[in-house]
Amino acid sequence: MEIIDVKEKLSLFDELWSPKIVGELNGQYVKLAKLKGEFVWHKHEEEDELFMVVKGKLTIRLKEQDVNLSAGQFIIIPSGVEHLPIAEEECHVMLFEPKTVVNTGNVKNEKTVEKLETL
Amino acid sequence: MEIIDVKEKLSLFDELWSPKIVGELNGQYVKLAKLKGEFVWHKHEEEDELFMVVKGKLTIRLKEQDVNLSAGQFIIIPSGVEHLPIAEEECHVMLFEPKTVVNTGNVKNEKTVEKLETL
Repeated sequence: MEIIDVKEKLSLFDELWSPKIVGELNGQYVKLAKLKGEFVWHKHEEEDELFMVVKGKLTIRLKEQDVNLSAGQFIIIPSGVEHLPIAEEECHVMLFEPKTVVNTGNVKNEKTVEKLETL
Repeated sequence: MEIIDVKEKLSLFDELWSPKIVGELNGQYVKLAKLKGEFVWHKHEEEDELFMVVKGKLTIRLKEQDVNLSAGQFIIIPSGVEHLPIAEEECHVMLFEPKTVVNTGNVKNEKTVEKLETL
């Protein structure tokens, strides 16, 4: 049983848009990611996804609105809802989601990360 | 789809040892709780449980060791593992666990909260 220090784990990598696994429970992963720039429109057909901002600001663009999150705030994107994460400046996030989630959801492109590293 | 501000939600209640639901995804709840003093030894037979400290310090006593957590740190207690949360000073935590979890697990006593409030 390991104590996970979120900031310490975030200090271990610099890659953008490459979630790292830092915990596993009940078929879900806890992940950390560093984001900067614009990701890709996608949805997860089966899985809800929680984005919690640890540092910086994150915009999640939805078809009908933009959601603006700051550190200490989270949002849950229900399955099937198309979304586009955008970070004007580098932003650090914690994710809670089923182990089956692939970062780009229904889209496969150069940002797709199939095999995640565990920190 | 609601933006959840963790500190703002924590400002809405003062009760100790009474987790409040602030999110739901994939059969799991995100909860916030304020803890002070010693809880009760218990375990969750089926569910893993994540404790993340938002403010203050939390000790989780296990049979073989004490785990000391500070703000920004989390631990996952696997199902079946007996644990006793202790907060010398008031401590605020975020919990991530299946919807089926009852706070006192296999124990029923005056600290058991059967019906959780959603904030």
